[in-house]
Amino acid sequence: MPELRKDPVTGRWVIIATDRAKRPSDFVRESVMPRGVPVCPFCPGQEQRTPPEVLAYRNGNAPNEPGWSLRVIPNKVPALRVEGEIDRQGEGLYDKMTGIGAHEVIIETPEHLSTLATLHEKRIEDLFWAFRDRILDLRKDRRLRYILLFKNHGEAAGASLEHTHSQLIALPVVPKRVQEEIAGSRRYFDFKERCIYCDIVRQELEAGARVILETDHCVAIAPYAPRFPFETWILPRAHQSHFEEAEAPTLQSLAWLFRAMLRKMDKVLERPPYNLVIHTSPIQEGPNPHYHWHIELIPKLTKVAGFEWGTGFYLNPTPPEEAAQFLREAGLS
Amino acid sequence: MPELRKDPVTGRWVIIATDRAKRPSDFVRESVMPRGVPVCPFCPGQEQRTPPEVLAYRNGNAPNEPGWSLRVIPNKVPALRVEGEIDRQGEGLYDKMTGIGAHEVIIETPEHLSTLATLHEKRIEDLFWAFRDRILDLRKDRRLRYILLFKNHGEAAGASLEHTHSQLIALPVVPKRVQEEIAGSRRYFDFKERCIYCDIVRQELEAGARVILETDHCVAIAPYAPRFPFETWILPRAHQSHFEEAEAPTLQSLAWLFRAMLRKMDKVLERPPYNLVIHTSPIQEGPNPHYHWHIELIPKLTKVAGFEWGTGFYLNPTPPEEAAQFLREAGLS
Repeated sequence: MPELRKDPVTGRWVIIATDRAKRPSDFVRESVMPRGVPVCPFCPGQEQRTPPEVLAYRNGNAPNEPGWSLRVIPNKVPALRVEGEIDRQGEGLYDKMTGIGAHEVIIETPEHLSTLATLHEKRIEDLFWAFRDRILDLRKDRRLRYILLFKNHGEAAGASLEHTHSQLIALPVVPKRVQEEIAGSRRYFDFKERCIYCDIVRQELEAGARVILETDHCVAIAPYAPRFPFETWILPRAHQSHFEEAEAPTLQSLAWLFRAMLRKMDKVLERPPYNLVIHTSPIQEGPNPHYHWHIELIPKLTKVAGFEWGTGFYLNPTPPEEAAQFLREAGLS
Repeated sequence: MPELRKDPVTGRWVIIATDRAKRPSDFVRESVMPRGVPVCPFCPGQEQRTPPEVLAYRNGNAPNEPGWSLRVIPNKVPALRVEGEIDRQGEGLYDKMTGIGAHEVIIETPEHLSTLATLHEKRIEDLFWAFRDRILDLRKDRRLRYILLFKNHGEAAGASLEHTHSQLIALPVVPKRVQEEIAGSRRYFDFKERCIYCDIVRQELEAGARVILETDHCVAIAPYAPRFPFETWILPRAHQSHFEEAEAPTLQSLAWLFRAMLRKMDKVLERPPYNLVIHTSPIQEGPNPHYHWHIELIPKLTKVAGFEWGTGFYLNPTPPEEAAQFLREAGLS
């Protein structure tokens, strides 16, 4: 009998099709294999072809020269711009505002043919430090309310350039879905006086069936009501509302665990395209007791049945307990 | 300057990238051209290969024999089943229930190589009648709360069989996104004592810039804050909360307008894959003054940047005013 499961934070229902469960080999997909391109603007030596860097980790050399291991640049065709004033206006019954914000690209390595799964652990840790550094810098601009950090890996997941990179979008509003998640966790806190994510971590570690990997500071689980096959969440064990509060031990632990997760996914799902999103609290608010930052990692395995956008209803052919088992059993090599 | 626009019903913000506006030719995509397959279970003569029909429009002949012009069957691998009892249970802090519901397939024509854009207008009208007939039948089952009617056209939009068909999923819960839309329209009604969709129709017809097509009973517009390029909404002019309340003049008018829209899209966007979703009120509730059923039609033009699922934030490279103009100017032939 199929099961309807409710995501405890957002209240979203999903159908888990237990009796037509899909195994990894049932998903037809393209493997993501960087092939190399003749003139990649993200490669060392091509620094002049991008806007000037806003952050770089480098061993000597001047800015916008080779010698970096990670580089953050404004997006060449930004969705939002820092310049200008926020101007809210009506248009009959509609509302709009000027597109103030920031849109940056984090080039994760100078090596064109690397992926996050093949990079050294230290480079992954640097990526998380760069996320943190950019949040701490951008939140000084009080007009900005939320920072989205995400990665589209592979063309099928929306990446337009092959050279591995993440993106940052800083917004003058808190997006709907984020608001909803935060409101859901606040309702739980009002009722129980506990963080729902802390409770999830506790229950998952006790039950074990959906746990994929754990370290001293972090845990990777298949969520109870996943929208997509092999959807994975990575959470810090200790309560923390903002990603940018994370300190060295957490980020080190996260880097190891995240890289291990990607290697497991590459193994089980044959180098799938994926999307990564950091879920965190709005940047202008202080620490709170109800929301708990985490990472959502979603391999892109199924053709999107677009009706899900319209309905918020998801049909998932792989029970999370099975996905967790496949990933748990896969080695790290 | 890019614009942030707010969807007035759900409160969802989208970025409209006015200064990197994409025109139809900027989208790389696959055209959907039915090619024919040797043994299609939806073709006449293959009726024994599907579960027995629950509805058919036919000229004579026995059920589950050829001679039909439209046929509704239970999905062979249903996401939900009618048999059994609704059983709600906890699992620690989580909630689940048994997957009671219905999952049906509407085979829109016996002709394997047709699409809705090439079918006769009368066949499209029949499709809408079939939607209505199935709702009226299924709502007698008081356990069912909501009926999703949708169509995935083309493989890239999630269709797994080529022979043109729609789907129906009847659910024991009202999906999150539907609840949200209805709650948004109720808030507006509480404030203004008017239906927000009626106001949208009025404002759009006055402004004209986002109107694509209109008939006596229906209007097709590019919405003010579309999530996707060339997203189109089709609304009845007169207030009506439930799709199944629609009567012959509306359904006739809708059939003409919908077919015309598809022909325009096929012309401007070169036979794109698309998703169609009917947005309507929960089936067990009586008529209400705040919600207004409508159709959302979304051509699948862009690779899905999956972070949008996680954030509810959309980046749309084509302003709706431009999309509307392209579609308005395209002929119907």
